[in-house]
Amino acid sequence: MTDEPKKNMEVTPWKVSGDIDYDKLMVQFGVQSMNDEIADKLAKHAGFKHLQLRRGVYLSHRDTDWWIKEYEKGNKVGLYTGRGPSGHVHLGHLLPWFFCKYLQDAFDADLYFQMTDDEKFLHRDDLTLEAAVALTYENALDVIACGLDPEKTHIFSDADHIQHLYKLGLKVAKRTTFSTVRAVFGFKNSDNIGAIWHPALQMMVCFLQSEREGKNIPCLIPAAIDQDPYWRITRDIAEKMGYYKPAQIHAKFLPGLAEGGKMSASQPDTAIFTTDPPKEAGKKVMRAYTGGRDTVEEQRKLGGRPEVCNVYAYYYFLFEDDDQRLVEREVSCKSGEILCGHCKTDLAVRIEVFLTDFQEKREAAREVLDQFIIKPVE
Amino acid sequence: MTDEPKKNMEVTPWKVSGDIDYDKLMVQFGVQSMNDEIADKLAKHAGFKHLQLRRGVYLSHRDTDWWIKEYEKGNKVGLYTGRGPSGHVHLGHLLPWFFCKYLQDAFDADLYFQMTDDEKFLHRDDLTLEAAVALTYENALDVIACGLDPEKTHIFSDADHIQHLYKLGLKVAKRTTFSTVRAVFGFKNSDNIGAIWHPALQMMVCFLQSEREGKNIPCLIPAAIDQDPYWRITRDIAEKMGYYKPAQIHAKFLPGLAEGGKMSASQPDTAIFTTDPPKEAGKKVMRAYTGGRDTVEEQRKLGGRPEVCNVYAYYYFLFEDDDQRLVEREVSCKSGEILCGHCKTDLAVRIEVFLTDFQEKREAAREVLDQFIIKPVE
Repeated sequence: MTDEPKKNMEVTPWKVSGDIDYDKLMVQFGVQSMNDEIADKLAKHAGFKHLQLRRGVYLSHRDTDWWIKEYEKGNKVGLYTGRGPSGHVHLGHLLPWFFCKYLQDAFDADLYFQMTDDEKFLHRDDLTLEAAVALTYENALDVIACGLDPEKTHIFSDADHIQHLYKLGLKVAKRTTFSTVRAVFGFKNSDNIGAIWHPALQMMVCFLQSEREGKNIPCLIPAAIDQDPYWRITRDIAEKMGYYKPAQIHAKFLPGLAEGGKMSASQPDTAIFTTDPPKEAGKKVMRAYTGGRDTVEEQRKLGGRPEVCNVYAYYYFLFEDDDQRLVEREVSCKSGEILCGHCKTDLAVRIEVFLTDFQEKREAAREVLDQFIIKPVE
Repeated sequence: MTDEPKKNMEVTPWKVSGDIDYDKLMVQFGVQSMNDEIADKLAKHAGFKHLQLRRGVYLSHRDTDWWIKEYEKGNKVGLYTGRGPSGHVHLGHLLPWFFCKYLQDAFDADLYFQMTDDEKFLHRDDLTLEAAVALTYENALDVIACGLDPEKTHIFSDADHIQHLYKLGLKVAKRTTFSTVRAVFGFKNSDNIGAIWHPALQMMVCFLQSEREGKNIPCLIPAAIDQDPYWRITRDIAEKMGYYKPAQIHAKFLPGLAEGGKMSASQPDTAIFTTDPPKEAGKKVMRAYTGGRDTVEEQRKLGGRPEVCNVYAYYYFLFEDDDQRLVEREVSCKSGEILCGHCKTDLAVRIEVFLTDFQEKREAAREVLDQFIIKPVE
């Protein structure tokens, strides 16, 4: 497929496709590059440098340095991320949630976790509202299984917990015109009025903790970069509303098992879901796209290409925490010493072990789900 | 002012101005003329023919005959009306609420009463959400003072009771495009995304009782004709959603005390508010526009013009229930036998008596307000 032209990149909150050019995205979205100083400060407060910080998962940000400084001044800081529950959770979704857990522990921060079940219903013809809401609670189990603190985590469904959101959403909506959301999200006149309203609900969460606690609390949003447009327009109205501008830290997409693009729930064979039977997940790995050569002979001679290999990417982003071992694997691959079957078999085992453990935590989460659901302000 | 050109009529859910041409409105809105058969059937079930039916307050409708027939078949029927709480309630607002009380008693019908405080906030720069919500509860006292049944009346604030409305609102919103609301309500790209969303909440109430009770219940909406566009587009999606089309019965506007237009809260001197001190209200009546002549001599000679007289309109629509006495007043006026001061003084007294009584009921309503507020479905 080397003759195929480079696919046009499209990154919006609802679609990520084509080959992702992060440098172009950063310019397009007008964000700041991540830097060592910020990564080191996060690591200092956490007590260790998270794999995702060491491996450049977070490649851009807005005002994360300011958010850290506020904490260092002794001020309370908060976190916000979310999920559009349109299907099962895959490993790509877990990356920012694990990172939220890391930040929650390091900064003693409340996490507001939004399930945009209303948005998924409004955007998808094939999804009922009841199905989307049911997925909220299934997906919440995955969030909880990441190890978050029930005392400091507030998961909410837009549809089921709208009473906690609506008034602040109205205030945000009043300051957001159709022209703005049309320009930023590409809405058309044929789009439904629910979809057009929904950005207000995703924007208002930036101010939710401040509103609930009656004081301004700096909010950091760890999320994939495709969600950035929401925060860009939120930043434009934040100070007028008397709140701080939300800070962001943007994650790369975890690649899927097929060539190119991100792991996607809409392409089930290319993604490993947290609900996959571990053995099935292992088989998906064995069918993954790698950076291997056409023949064994060629690979022994030229070496593999970890830079385009999805199996290598899984070690890199999630399953090889040891930097030294990762380098050894890369060197062995490039020299032709190890072949793709070696790396696949090893990864399949690691993923099976991971899933077995994660699924136990996920089932245990059913018992404590209520503790994580947003409560009225006392 | 007789040389002034006829003012252009503008009737939308947010603005009513100019001289109202009801025949033109009926054609423009595509509704059916009210007829004696319907009025008589309503009267038969009520046991008496309401002043508003005898005086042509309801001049058009959609499917009211069907709604009555459903009741006559032994089926449960329901009512829906509402109020945009942007200020105090004036006498013009009370007309349809009194009529709802009449229909509630006659048809043993639940009334869903919507307070669109969110809409008022979204449309008005000078109104905070907190002020709009506070007005909801003040205005609810007026609704209750009309004599409605606490067991069968469900008043709700969009902002405070959104949890009862949001899911059904999402389903309506998914079937309503920006193109539609732009065409029907005249939305522009510069309008805010909350205002664009809000029609979904006003539409969904047509189905709310059906949704809450788990069976299809015919809904009749007594309201001023300016709110009709909402029901027109609701009717287009009702059957696709599995509900009956809502029926409507359209009230005329009660004229203000100044020449032309309806009584309007935005022109406080031209409207009598339920919270006006009775003596103050009486003074407003004494300053009212009438159908009188320029001089006493002229009026004695030519007679007055009740057809353009706002004071006469108040007797006609609200304060003279006795048809015979109304005719006598009209004849005496036209013959020049009585002068404007006579009618004004008499009306001022009636309004003072009415307000004194209504304000007692309104204060008593504070004690029972909770009973009228929407409850979760059991």
